Amino acid sequence: MKWFERAITPNEAFFVRYHVFPIPTQVDLATWRLRVGGHVDRPLELSMDELKTRFPAAAVTAVNQCSGNSRGRFSPRVLGGQWGDGAMGNAEWVGCRLKDVLAAAGVRQGAVEVTFDGLDKPAFPSVPDLVKSLALARVLDDPNVIVAYQMNGAPLPMLNGFPARLVVPGWYATYWVKNLSDITVADKPFERFWMKPAYRIPDNPCGCVEPGTAPKATVPIHRMNVRSFLVSPEPGARLAAGRPVTLKGIAFDGGYGIREVEVSDDGGSTWRRVSLGRDLGPYAFREWSAAWTPPRAGAARVMVRAFNRIGESQGTEPLWNPAGYLRNVIESVEYPVG
Amino acid sequence: MKWFERAITPNEAFFVRYHVFPIPTQVDLATWRLRVGGHVDRPLELSMDELKTRFPAAAVTAVNQCSGNSRGRFSPRVLGGQWGDGAMGNAEWVGCRLKDVLAAAGVRQGAVEVTFDGLDKPAFPSVPDLVKSLALARVLDDPNVIVAYQMNGAPLPMLNGFPARLVVPGWYATYWVKNLSDITVADKPFERFWMKPAYRIPDNPCGCVEPGTAPKATVPIHRMNVRSFLVSPEPGARLAAGRPVTLKGIAFDGGYGIREVEVSDDGGSTWRRVSLGRDLGPYAFREWSAAWTPPRAGAARVMVRAFNRIGESQGTEPLWNPAGYLRNVIESVEYPVG
Repeated sequence: MKWFERAITPNEAFFVRYHVFPIPTQVDLATWRLRVGGHVDRPLELSMDELKTRFPAAAVTAVNQCSGNSRGRFSPRVLGGQWGDGAMGNAEWVGCRLKDVLAAAGVRQGAVEVTFDGLDKPAFPSVPDLVKSLALARVLDDPNVIVAYQMNGAPLPMLNGFPARLVVPGWYATYWVKNLSDITVADKPFERFWMKPAYRIPDNPCGCVEPGTAPKATVPIHRMNVRSFLVSPEPGARLAAGRPVTLKGIAFDGGYGIREVEVSDDGGSTWRRVSLGRDLGPYAFREWSAAWTPPRAGAARVMVRAFNRIGESQGTEPLWNPAGYLRNVIESVEYPVG
Repeated sequence: MKWFERAITPNEAFFVRYHVFPIPTQVDLATWRLRVGGHVDRPLELSMDELKTRFPAAAVTAVNQCSGNSRGRFSPRVLGGQWGDGAMGNAEWVGCRLKDVLAAAGVRQGAVEVTFDGLDKPAFPSVPDLVKSLALARVLDDPNVIVAYQMNGAPLPMLNGFPARLVVPGWYATYWVKNLSDITVADKPFERFWMKPAYRIPDNPCGCVEPGTAPKATVPIHRMNVRSFLVSPEPGARLAAGRPVTLKGIAFDGGYGIREVEVSDDGGSTWRRVSLGRDLGPYAFREWSAAWTPPRAGAARVMVRAFNRIGESQGTEPLWNPAGYLRNVIESVEYPVG
């Protein structure tokens, strides 16, 4: 967790997750093109130079979090990669706005969705190619959805999507298609494997069901919920009773922005507000810190919870769903105090 | 606010709101029938005796809150009745389940909505009759949606919907059609005046827009958000520094249930958990209380906020929408301390 003490996650520490193998290991920019087609007036084939010169550059600092982040903590256990809390990162992404690219291609009347395909191709025909879609209304005028070619001031690393990836701030990483090659506008909803049945959550406000049961109806996963983490001192670090330490961590949500973070050292009976770090925008990690003095020898447990601008916070009990998505229970860290 | 010190609001103190006049002032049970028709196999005309004997009785304790409750506090001001916080109440409703009534009528394939009409008729033809609709999927299997004929152990008072009203726990009062006379199953979405353009909220997670602006897209108002109130001591009551008092109030949400209520007397820097009263179900007022001692002479301000089971809470700034709906900012009460 040490990387999360800073609001920006270095490129070399950023998590990597691919769905299908083999994954692309090199891309030749001389031949790479971003194809924009489907239900448009003017299909495009854009080189990287054209992406950079034909459209104004746009920057957004945003958290990229795997839908299954923290899945390993669900009870009962669920299928899928047993992530701890590391499948997330925050970076400054620079690229061109999707809405500008779509405008250049001329979206036709009747279009309803946009699909995104990358260079990663399944090794076996039985594995579905990863193609994701977004509702056209979701992206048409959103200046924050970008085709990124730069991450923290450098070209995208190969494993983070070189030469270009889709960035959908506030939404889970499943939409952030890497090694992007094809943008296709469609005049009907897209329901292939990676939208349906994969990556769906129960169709209710919590995205949850009673543990062990199946939801009656589902919708594609979308906006991230509120989360907060205590990163420093490291869990298990030995502290001294009566000696002040500085608690540090990060918090984020799906784009309303973090308004408040609080800590408790008495199991949640009382909470106090901590100091927030610099505001890097509503989609970014928000750093926080607080002075805290372990009151006595023994085991201390520090809990942290965050609130976003619309009053959403974190629950005291983990909510469950079959895919292990959306975990946002209040997390706590234990310290031995000597 | 004194009625809200108790979890159940007496019938004579329950708020009354009609949209159109004249309102019905008497109903003859000998001739009153609940008609169930439209896209069904067996249209029904049910007398009150049949409602009570043909279907099992179901009880639900639920808050009925006007969508515009607290609208008078919005800034900038919005159109509509300038309610303070009194347009809400909590009662035990008894009636038959809508799903049982619909099953008796036999909903046909292709049905998508159910509309509800009451006896209140506009005095002038230019005023639209109040007809509300609910998606069939929303109500088909929900045992909590009932056609109520009893409120807190007595027949429904005339002004609260005698002889029967729809009860939609967790949702705003606009769906709780009074003096119910007609239930009509429809095979296409219903978009008459009281569903569209009236009673709609911005189509985003907060139901809010920048103050003074108009939303791009709207959806019908639905689930109530989290609210909490400090009811006793009454606002403005003179308290003595150093002498303990008992703070009391209520909290509720749209049906996940209140898990925690907290108070702060230092402007929100620290919060402490209060005691919750008996759990009357996830749709009811939840009473809370806490001992508190005003620390010093001067003005004291006590803030209260609640959390529901999925971690939703209340914001520190009021969110705005053109109709003045959904207010759920953290409320506070001032006391002079001598």
